Amino acid sequence: MNIAYVGVGLIGGSFSLAIQELYGHWVMGGVSRKESTLDRAEELGLISERFSGWEAAVDWADWIILSIPVNAIQKMLPSLLDQVKDHQVVVDFGSTKGGICANVDDHPRRHQFIPAHPIAGTEYSGPEAAFSSLFKDKTMVICDPERVETKSLQAFVKVVNEIGMNISYLGAEEHDRHLAYISHLSHVTSFSLSHAVLQKERDGEVLLELAGSGFASTVRLAKSSPEMWAPIFLDNKKMLLESMETYHAHFTRLKSLLEADDLEGIISFLEKGREIRKILK
Amino acid sequence: MNIAYVGVGLIGGSFSLAIQELYGHWVMGGVSRKESTLDRAEELGLISERFSGWEAAVDWADWIILSIPVNAIQKMLPSLLDQVKDHQVVVDFGSTKGGICANVDDHPRRHQFIPAHPIAGTEYSGPEAAFSSLFKDKTMVICDPERVETKSLQAFVKVVNEIGMNISYLGAEEHDRHLAYISHLSHVTSFSLSHAVLQKERDGEVLLELAGSGFASTVRLAKSSPEMWAPIFLDNKKMLLESMETYHAHFTRLKSLLEADDLEGIISFLEKGREIRKILK
Repeated sequence: MNIAYVGVGLIGGSFSLAIQELYGHWVMGGVSRKESTLDRAEELGLISERFSGWEAAVDWADWIILSIPVNAIQKMLPSLLDQVKDHQVVVDFGSTKGGICANVDDHPRRHQFIPAHPIAGTEYSGPEAAFSSLFKDKTMVICDPERVETKSLQAFVKVVNEIGMNISYLGAEEHDRHLAYISHLSHVTSFSLSHAVLQKERDGEVLLELAGSGFASTVRLAKSSPEMWAPIFLDNKKMLLESMETYHAHFTRLKSLLEADDLEGIISFLEKGREIRKILK
Repeated sequence: MNIAYVGVGLIGGSFSLAIQELYGHWVMGGVSRKESTLDRAEELGLISERFSGWEAAVDWADWIILSIPVNAIQKMLPSLLDQVKDHQVVVDFGSTKGGICANVDDHPRRHQFIPAHPIAGTEYSGPEAAFSSLFKDKTMVICDPERVETKSLQAFVKVVNEIGMNISYLGAEEHDRHLAYISHLSHVTSFSLSHAVLQKERDGEVLLELAGSGFASTVRLAKSSPEMWAPIFLDNKKMLLESMETYHAHFTRLKSLLEADDLEGIISFLEKGREIRKILK
């Protein structure tokens, strides 16, 4: 079994490591235009074969896994599906699904494409960030499974389960709505917080060495890759803007309570917000 | 040496544990109106003496450490200082300092009061949340040290250093400005995020079981104690509102870039926000 990873960074690289631990004889190939990325991926054992473009890998691979920015996935996917043979399967690991799926909705090889999203990651990126246990006990969302040829889907699901992941099936639109709130919005607030603090730090008004673990936690996602995240924001623009409006309404309500010196009102706001602890352990 | 803790929760309790590890013969006393809190604190070894009010503890203690909500500190501190004898020292561990210090600025026993803020904590609260290593390698801010009698300050600083903390000296106003940005604002964004997601979850539009570690990280502070945090927000209202304005300006800028489909603009925004990783490891 040959698997080609278009993009061998945190996500593709970690998936490759997890698979190699289970299936030592499967062969992992990396696809990247950057020689240096393939060098690092090879040194780190993420891959043993290398290809400078997907066109070169497409005949070699049984599975082609796309873990590159979502705008790049959207752009290449139709041409890639044009090229695949009957036995081949294409999987994408993008963080948005609506645009990618809509773009190949009528493609004659649509049944050979599995839109998937592993809900796992760290704020780091690149081959160095990959580690084999990233996906352990995490969730793989698979979108619109009814559109995929059964045997291919089953084979993929088996591997995903064996590396320790749970599977959730969702419609692509539904996926994007949920993720706007529970992932993309968190990135927006983290990056905005980082900007606010850095601005004041440059003005000499903030001593970052005084920051405790609370700030580190809320600002952590602002270390994420801009090349990955800007396209996610844009691809999920409608849902993300809606989530930002909802967030903003609550932020403004807290601001008004503060301006009104309403201690009881603020306590009640915090009590309600604190209910998240019942759901999120 | 007798130390009385007015408030024996996460902060007071952890300080007591850290001190007991170093100075086994020092005696720790807890002050609380809640019998159940003192019961738990005693069971957990945080204290061995108990007092139902600070008035009962004030003759017994050499040091009186206040780790209760900042509005309660502000209210009790003048009367407490009225009661202390020459050899006694009062320390407060509140997260804001301006209001507390202003309130006792002219007090004849001002030199027996150390306004301190241990930059450490978790999202949990109460005696059960206390652990002895909470303060290890963390920073203790001490405000306006020139207002404190030298010997008392030195004795406190020695203990703080010996439990593994660094010390930063800051003016009270300066402290509050920094903390607005690097701590209080993070709590505001976390609680607002929690509200936004919980609202959509109630509407059935968000599946929280899909949330990954990123959301957990940004929303973690929304588990914090409302009784502690509402008074902090209000006490630091001016600086916090300013920090919220700064934050809001960046949030709105990202929103405009998104509305304008400006991919390059968003990448550049994220690149700048990402500079936080150079400062925060």
